[in-house]
Parts: sequence; C-alpha cells; structure tokens
Amino acid sequence: MGHPKSINDINAMDYEDFISHFGNAIENCSLIAAAVWRFRPFNDVVHLHEALCSFVDDLPVSVLSPGQEGILRSHPDLAGRVAAAGALTAESTLEQRSAGLSQLTTEERVELTDLNERYRGKFGFPFVVCARQNKKNSIFEGLRARLNNSTEEEVAKGVQEVKKICYLRLLDLVVHEGIESKY
Amino acid sequence: MGHPKSINDINAMDYEDFISHFGNAIENCSLIAAAVWRFRPFNDVVHLHEALCSFVDDLPVSVLSPGQEGILRSHPDLAGRVAAAGALTAESTLEQRSAGLSQLTTEERVELTDLNERYRGKFGFPFVVCARQNKKNSIFEGLRARLNNSTEEEVAKGVQEVKKICYLRLLDLVVHEGIESKY
Repeated sequence: MGHPKSINDINAMDYEDFISHFGNAIENCSLIAAAVWRFRPFNDVVHLHEALCSFVDDLPVSVLSPGQEGILRSHPDLAGRVAAAGALTAESTLEQRSAGLSQLTTEERVELTDLNERYRGKFGFPFVVCARQNKKNSIFEGLRARLNNSTEEEVAKGVQEVKKICYLRLLDLVVHEGIESKY
Repeated sequence: MGHPKSINDINAMDYEDFISHFGNAIENCSLIAAAVWRFRPFNDVVHLHEALCSFVDDLPVSVLSPGQEGILRSHPDLAGRVAAAGALTAESTLEQRSAGLSQLTTEERVELTDLNERYRGKFGFPFVVCARQNKKNSIFEGLRARLNNSTEEEVAKGVQEVKKICYLRLLDLVVHEGIESKY
C-alpha cells in the first residue's frame, strides 16, 4: 500500500511501478493491473476504476465464469484461517478490522467459520463482501441470505463487491478531489 | 515451490491448497491457477497444462491483447533489477541461474540491460523466454533478433514462451511418468 499519487505521476509510471502501486487494487490479482497499464493515460481515479472493471467484465464467460470465479478465489475468508495466521494483505487487514471482524466473540467466530465453510462448500469460492461498507451484523446477515442464491447469482454479486472494494482502495492510491461516491 | 503431488492428491485439493501449489505456474499470475481449479478433475499434468493454456488463450483479444500483455508484464527482466535485488520468485531464480544468467561478465550485463531496455521501450512489456531451454548466448541472440518483430508477433511469441515455462514448472509440481516432452 503506497502513498496516494497524482494522476499525472501515475500516467508517467513504467509498468513495474504501476504494478507495484496498484497490484492489490483487486486482491491478489496483480495481473489485472498489469493488463490495464496499456490504457494510460487515465483522466482520473474513476477512469482507472472503469478500466479495471472492464477487464474483469471481459473475462471469458461461457456457462462457467472461470476468470471471475478465479478473482473471487483470490480473496481470503472473512476472519478465516489466513486472518488467523496474520497473513492477510495490508489492505484486507484494515478492511476486516474496520468491520469489527478482528474483535469477534468466540460464539461469533464459530458461527462465521461455519457459514464460511457452508458457503465455500456450496459455491467453490469464498464469500466476498466490501467490509468497509459493512459492520459485522450486516456481514452475518448477508452471508446467511446469500447462501440461498444460485452460483450464477453469487458470481455476479461477488464481482460487484470486488469492484466496490477496488474503488475504495483506488481512492487511497490516487490523489483526487470532488469525486462523487460511486457506491 | 512445493514437492510434487500425485494427480489424485491434486484433484482432491481445496482451492486454497491448489492456488498455493500452482499459483506461480504462470509467473506472478495466481489468478489463472485460481480460475482453472474449477476444471478438476485433471487426468494428468498435460491435461492441467492444457487448462492453464486455454485460459490464457481465451483472455480477451481485440486489436489489443491486454490480458496476455498483462501476463508478460508480470514477468521479471532477465538479469534485471528484480534479480539484482534478490527478489525473484524461487522458480525464476533457478531458471535464470540454469541459463547462466547469474554469472554474467560486466560487459554482458551492460549489454543485456541495454537490450532489455530497448525491448521494453519498444513493446511495453519485458522479453520473456524459457530460460531453462536456453543458454546465455542463445538468449542474447534471441533478444537481438526479436527486437525487430512487431508487437503482435512478440505478444504471440512471449505467450508461447510462458506456456513452455509453465509446462516445465508443472513437471516439477505434479508426479508423472512417461510423459513425452511437449516442447
């Protein structure tokens, strides 16, 4: 997680610096930042976000959506074993903490572990939600409710959350002013 | 870099273990391993390689090939600044060493740095070659020759090399016998 850079500085970055700055804008998917580098210059953070999201949208979809599912699978469980091992990315650590997930009761931790396992067992990817826009109660509610959806619905829902997470991360990485909130 | 696993063990892996084992089969592109997990069970290492390569091939291509260029940009320069900083992935370290790139003369290093810069300046991604199938002389020759190609030719050539690198890495990660060499 670097300091915010001006859009001019960003447009002047070589691809190594660009990947280093934006590689985790989509969790553990630096390939996507590496891909959109070629679309410089960007007008502003919104334009950069659109380029990242377009790449995600254009990943091959047939009956299956392996690329988008791959993005979801690149995310850690909320308060899961990666968090317990202290191995979350810097961004995820702050986001999960902001939602209160670093301070669960034993009972809550047991329930969340169970819900996460049921979710992964049903869909084959983890439950992804924009933690910075939620508190733990709404996360528990969302997880219980989304367990009833179809895989197709959950790929779409999860990708939508990935885009929100990405946008909030970009706001920390790009100097901006007067941008309206997209989400 | 884990120890080789049997195809049965691989097919039984959850996605976290799968990503952990195969995440660098394509350099710094764990998203691709995350994506193909859904195509289990695999018959053997060749089948797994085909699944990874198909994903690469199916990345969106218009006039531009941002996804495939993104894969190329996820690779370090040969004997470049990542290598000098000791920050190569374990796989790249061994591969570059096997080609003799860890023992360049000062003159060779200067020339390689210059060729790498010209290549990156022309194409916007690094020169990618399967180092395990080359010695330093052929790498220098290839780099000089490929500098004359078009961007389109170099995306195609680079991706072909990525697939070779991937196959040789997979042979280290999957127990196999009697597989004919593909490259």
